[in-house]
Amino acid sequence: MEERSSAMFRITPDFLERLAIGAGILGTGGGGNPYNGKLMALQQLLMGREIDVVHPSEVPDEAVVTSVGGMGAPTVGVERIDQGEESLRAMRALEKRTGKTVEYVVPSEIGGGNSIMPVIVAAQAGIKVIDGDGMGRAFPELQMETYVMYGIPPTPGGLADHSSREVVFSGISDPRTLERYARVVTVQMGGGAGYAFPIMTGAELKRTVIPGTLSLAAKIGEAVIAERSGHGDPVGAVIETTGGKLFFTGKIADVERRLEGGFTRGGLKLEGSGDFAGQLLVIDFQNENLIARTGEGEILAIVPDLICIVDEETAEPITTEILRYGLRVAVIGVPAPAALKTARALAFVGPAAFGYPNVEYTPMPGIYGGEGFDQGGPWL
Amino acid sequence: MEERSSAMFRITPDFLERLAIGAGILGTGGGGNPYNGKLMALQQLLMGREIDVVHPSEVPDEAVVTSVGGMGAPTVGVERIDQGEESLRAMRALEKRTGKTVEYVVPSEIGGGNSIMPVIVAAQAGIKVIDGDGMGRAFPELQMETYVMYGIPPTPGGLADHSSREVVFSGISDPRTLERYARVVTVQMGGGAGYAFPIMTGAELKRTVIPGTLSLAAKIGEAVIAERSGHGDPVGAVIETTGGKLFFTGKIADVERRLEGGFTRGGLKLEGSGDFAGQLLVIDFQNENLIARTGEGEILAIVPDLICIVDEETAEPITTEILRYGLRVAVIGVPAPAALKTARALAFVGPAAFGYPNVEYTPMPGIYGGEGFDQGGPWL
Repeated sequence: MEERSSAMFRITPDFLERLAIGAGILGTGGGGNPYNGKLMALQQLLMGREIDVVHPSEVPDEAVVTSVGGMGAPTVGVERIDQGEESLRAMRALEKRTGKTVEYVVPSEIGGGNSIMPVIVAAQAGIKVIDGDGMGRAFPELQMETYVMYGIPPTPGGLADHSSREVVFSGISDPRTLERYARVVTVQMGGGAGYAFPIMTGAELKRTVIPGTLSLAAKIGEAVIAERSGHGDPVGAVIETTGGKLFFTGKIADVERRLEGGFTRGGLKLEGSGDFAGQLLVIDFQNENLIARTGEGEILAIVPDLICIVDEETAEPITTEILRYGLRVAVIGVPAPAALKTARALAFVGPAAFGYPNVEYTPMPGIYGGEGFDQGGPWL
Repeated sequence: MEERSSAMFRITPDFLERLAIGAGILGTGGGGNPYNGKLMALQQLLMGREIDVVHPSEVPDEAVVTSVGGMGAPTVGVERIDQGEESLRAMRALEKRTGKTVEYVVPSEIGGGNSIMPVIVAAQAGIKVIDGDGMGRAFPELQMETYVMYGIPPTPGGLADHSSREVVFSGISDPRTLERYARVVTVQMGGGAGYAFPIMTGAELKRTVIPGTLSLAAKIGEAVIAERSGHGDPVGAVIETTGGKLFFTGKIADVERRLEGGFTRGGLKLEGSGDFAGQLLVIDFQNENLIARTGEGEILAIVPDLICIVDEETAEPITTEILRYGLRVAVIGVPAPAALKTARALAFVGPAAFGYPNVEYTPMPGIYGGEGFDQGGPWL
């Protein structure tokens, strides 16, 4: 709880390095690689821009807030570097439609590149970024944000491509419908787009955000960097700062990956080493890792709990698009934040929402596995 | 040229009956059946609304004009009656985005239901409708309008569904891109949507519109009705009022029809009767009829020239969605308006644009087959 005392802080190059690592790990394979985003944010700092981070509790009730990010299959992101103003222009389109001026941007997902996109937009627009997000991890679809899950109307919402094209959606009450509309337009935009939605008040933000996740991601990265430089235990640092559990260490023996409807879908097989020698681990993903099973089919973790794959030595996050045969990795399970485990949330991000209708969600054992919504732990 | 003298006229129930027949014939199989549109427009008249039609030459240069219509595969339209305000709401969304108030609506296509949609929107909004359109027939895609073909920016453009959903597109300079974006959203909207685009000035309208087509469609319908009631020759009336040519009379022997990417695609085979006994005619369509060939493969007509299928006795237009085995029909070819035959236009609506890259467009012989843009004939 100590971080709360520094309710506002300024982003430094060090913070960006830490954030990129932590966000990569919390991305559970998806959310895009934060590397390009980090460089773009550094560029903003080099240009003299100041980027302040504010805890949600410090945001006035009547403030105008939106979440921004990038949409599309990560596989596309590897090939085509974002032009850098997609999300800003999506936000401007939203402002034009609503006649409101956005004062704060908040990440929709702390996992992957979308944790840094709001930092860049805050710099570009000269506004503040909020320490929190709407997923506590990465998810593949827009309706999986806590903001809309807990009742903020998903539209008006803006979408913009790398050139001049903008699309504004209105009058859509079901966030799944917005997801479908935005997804097909994103595919037409070449597979990648920036988005800005939903527009909300400070009060609405505070009711629905998962607070403290930008700081948490940086804290994870900080611990990893410290262990790396001291020849310590970076994987252990991830486990400690996330409250996670080591599921497996081993070698990637097989990867199947396909681009399907704007998503990267597939699975991978791991052969154990060390304590896990002779064992198998099987993981399915849809941009993000969805389910981890032993060779015998026992489920170790399933969405919304986090399944994080990192390099066995350095704890460098391994995203879905760079999975390849022979990589030696550690697999860490992290219990999802409480906001993702309510009955309402599970309808959007539980096993059934990802094509596992017959698997009942059993929360990973762990200190954050309880029932309440804002109950402490690192997710603050 | 005489019609020009009555530069403004008021729409009557009789006019709607005539328009529905003429627009159905000029729809060349597509554009949707005008029947539902006619009923909706009649409903507006019954509610006491007055709908005035103005010739483009009477529109002030600085007036705010947009074209409106419905988008989607006609096969869907048969199943789901439009709610009736899709196009109006698309126009309102466009007004919200641009801060302009539309003063005139103009049909994008005179063929099929989209000839009447602007009449309904004019009644709903209390504005005037323009005697002219952007196709002189029906075409399946948005970029096939003369407005955008001759340089009006296609966006901002609005799209709305039958409930509350609105999508506004901006910053798209290539009308083919707008077509792709709008098409995928329309499919997500359940297959049908109302649109409003492009927004233009009166001067831009006058430079790009095909003038006089609302009157022309009504004139065709009037002649057909007169011949029907006098037990005369309705098919002959179509030929005379359009300047067309009878290609074929016969029975539909085979129809293949499939829903593909939001379009109704397919083809039909006709067996000749009367003067055409023993002969075959083959027609391909994509919503609209594209190409008519003899059994020997000789091309009788190809887009942009019009291939109109009507009932052999009554000249009732036969749209793509009601084609069925056994219908006895007449096939009439009508030379396209000059605005569709320029090199620029043929890049959008010539044979290559419809999947016939190896067929050179040879204009149907006829009095409107020349080179100029505004050279007279019924297309005024």
